[in-house]
Amino acid sequence: MIVPRLIERKRNGGRLEPEEITELVISFSDGKVPDYQMAAFLMAVYYRGLDRGEMNALMDAMLESGKRLDFSHLSKPRIDKHSTGGVGDKTSLILAPLIASLGVAVPMMSGRGLGHTGGTLDKLESIPGFRTSLSLEETERQVERIGCAMIGQTEEIVPADGKLYALRDATATVEVIPLIASSIMSKKISESLTGLVLDIKRGSGSFMPELDQEIALANAMIELGDAHDCPVVALLTAMDRPLGCACGNALEVVESIEVLKGEGPRDLAEVTMALGAEMLILAGVAKSTKDAIAMMIDSMTTGRALAKFREIVRAQGGDESVIDKPEKLPQARHKAYFVAPSSGIVQSVDPREIGYGVISLGGGRRNMEDTINPSVGFVITAKPGARVSKGDELATVHAGSESDLKLGESILGKAIVIGDDRPNPLPLVSHRVTANGVESLV
Amino acid sequence: MIVPRLIERKRNGGRLEPEEITELVISFSDGKVPDYQMAAFLMAVYYRGLDRGEMNALMDAMLESGKRLDFSHLSKPRIDKHSTGGVGDKTSLILAPLIASLGVAVPMMSGRGLGHTGGTLDKLESIPGFRTSLSLEETERQVERIGCAMIGQTEEIVPADGKLYALRDATATVEVIPLIASSIMSKKISESLTGLVLDIKRGSGSFMPELDQEIALANAMIELGDAHDCPVVALLTAMDRPLGCACGNALEVVESIEVLKGEGPRDLAEVTMALGAEMLILAGVAKSTKDAIAMMIDSMTTGRALAKFREIVRAQGGDESVIDKPEKLPQARHKAYFVAPSSGIVQSVDPREIGYGVISLGGGRRNMEDTINPSVGFVITAKPGARVSKGDELATVHAGSESDLKLGESILGKAIVIGDDRPNPLPLVSHRVTANGVESLV
Repeated sequence: MIVPRLIERKRNGGRLEPEEITELVISFSDGKVPDYQMAAFLMAVYYRGLDRGEMNALMDAMLESGKRLDFSHLSKPRIDKHSTGGVGDKTSLILAPLIASLGVAVPMMSGRGLGHTGGTLDKLESIPGFRTSLSLEETERQVERIGCAMIGQTEEIVPADGKLYALRDATATVEVIPLIASSIMSKKISESLTGLVLDIKRGSGSFMPELDQEIALANAMIELGDAHDCPVVALLTAMDRPLGCACGNALEVVESIEVLKGEGPRDLAEVTMALGAEMLILAGVAKSTKDAIAMMIDSMTTGRALAKFREIVRAQGGDESVIDKPEKLPQARHKAYFVAPSSGIVQSVDPREIGYGVISLGGGRRNMEDTINPSVGFVITAKPGARVSKGDELATVHAGSESDLKLGESILGKAIVIGDDRPNPLPLVSHRVTANGVESLV
Repeated sequence: MIVPRLIERKRNGGRLEPEEITELVISFSDGKVPDYQMAAFLMAVYYRGLDRGEMNALMDAMLESGKRLDFSHLSKPRIDKHSTGGVGDKTSLILAPLIASLGVAVPMMSGRGLGHTGGTLDKLESIPGFRTSLSLEETERQVERIGCAMIGQTEEIVPADGKLYALRDATATVEVIPLIASSIMSKKISESLTGLVLDIKRGSGSFMPELDQEIALANAMIELGDAHDCPVVALLTAMDRPLGCACGNALEVVESIEVLKGEGPRDLAEVTMALGAEMLILAGVAKSTKDAIAMMIDSMTTGRALAKFREIVRAQGGDESVIDKPEKLPQARHKAYFVAPSSGIVQSVDPREIGYGVISLGGGRRNMEDTINPSVGFVITAKPGARVSKGDELATVHAGSESDLKLGESILGKAIVIGDDRPNPLPLVSHRVTANGVESLV
């Protein structure tokens, strides 16, 4: 393998043989191909793409670089959900216990906050004692015992992906559909799933704001799943405003508990149920969306969903008393209402402004070394289209200091736009993409 | 400076400010920006290019990274010639002494063999004792004293270019006009020239076979020269067949000496005189091409050109006796004639086949660590368009072993094509490019 020749071929729009991709990725993972050659290759891929065969080979090479969860002894269906990332998106916290409470194994591997979006691991770790760094063996045992584990990527799982992702992040080669698809799917396939539901975010707060790109990403992941007997269903959901009301780690745990009790914001419940229904249907435990929704409502109203969440928190070392007494979660020192500065209709609530706002308040990372203040953030009850009068309460700021309180208010002042027009927010769930094609849901 | 943001901007087709380019290149040269980020940036530049301002800033940053020759005390004009690289192209060996013999200072910095092309330094070093690694101070003193020095790039001169070039070579980002232009010109400007003549090769043996690219490269270098008061004139010359007859290091020295005596192959003399005339006109010592050619012929026939070559060889530690006794140059152990396998017209002599053939015989490097056998190569008297009869001598193979002799013959068998058509080789000198535009010379 002469690496500059491979780079040159891709640069000129040619294709690499699967065995060439495999050798390149494995050699990179082993440190035999230097970062700078891989960086040039990745930038060429940014412009020239990868075809199906190349993308499959890339994912397989990443899988080969590490270990997989072994559920060969488990007869249950195993379903995970993955989101491309949003603001206020706490559906993973709700779905893991909810779907596990209905007899489906959910080995859920999540990430940390990235850019303006929050991360499931950061949210879970706002529960005192909650441990997300389980070994593969611990994860297998816990899934076997209680049907669910919520963990982070370990060094055992697709290390080549970890190394490649860090390089992409440093070289402006993140936004490339076959690279995104193979990175996500390598982790998901290593969970030994029997099905995967994707939540692909749309709109200004998403990483990929063009509909055709979102569908292409869904199709790439469906393709990769198919090659490993893991059927994939993708829903395209709205991220032109935050999902639910709470944005900030501990605040989102509180809101998730509300939804697990059958309460909480309507939009959050609706997106969660849509994703949950796909998970239950993929698992084969529900026959239709209607059945699935009835099952989920039953689990929530009878307390089984919350009981499963309690089990997970306990199993992973967390303080389960926070479930009954949310005030035991980290509390911000300073709180203030944000009121409507004028009367009119809420035009928009900018999710990027809010997401970066949470980071500004200390609730996210600017660098990987930063520590998070889990208590801070926003609870925004105002939704686009709502009619408000001057002085109405629209949101609460939770901050660590008086000056951050002011900062939070100014962020909300920029993020929440009030005007006279009737806004046209994206439908909460707009498309469903499967191996059979794209279905519009509106 | 957030490097991924700069890479991203270039990737998306945006431009960098001159100060951003400067900081990027200087930080890279200092090791503060890692190779992998520079590699991704270079690949983005491959697709997106650099505009004039960016290219100028890149060259200036490379110049800033090192030292320059100082000729502030020298009143003479200082002219160099640079070729984009060819096979059998020994014009530098002839022009340096020839033009210096006419009162023009020639501080000539050359390279080693690259790809299929030969390198002036390798050819000079076939003269026993010849030293090409002079310090900047030695170079300055020698140019002052005898009007010419023939040296290699040192670590003092544009080190950023050296580092960047090595990275480009390893990442398939060599063939990018603004990168080629700024790399060449940074070295030439560091010689403190008052003018530069470019020999841009055309045809199958050149690195850049499209006419529009060759003109774009000429214009980029003219542009960079202008910004540093160094007028540049480019000639586009034929490299669809080797130039002259000798291909191989010591063999080319012998042929260069013949031309310095007013003898040697006609095509080589013609291209050399065309380039030399531009050098003399740029220097202001000749008023017209006609005058310049008369001056050069006078210098060659009176022996002044050869005397200057002798002075250079002596000054740089070489054995000057080889000039009178070329048999004292390294001699190949085995020689054989190559004869026409059939009668007809020579259709083509493939310069890449010949160039790589010299390397196969041991006369060039496959890796930077390889040592060269200076004696081996080919002397090919057959030129495209010549009518030959079966059994006519077309070439001589000079090889280090019996088996290499066979190899050389089979290389010539592939490189020299005999047929019935009248071939249409490129004109020896086809275009002249200056700041005033492109002039066709045919």
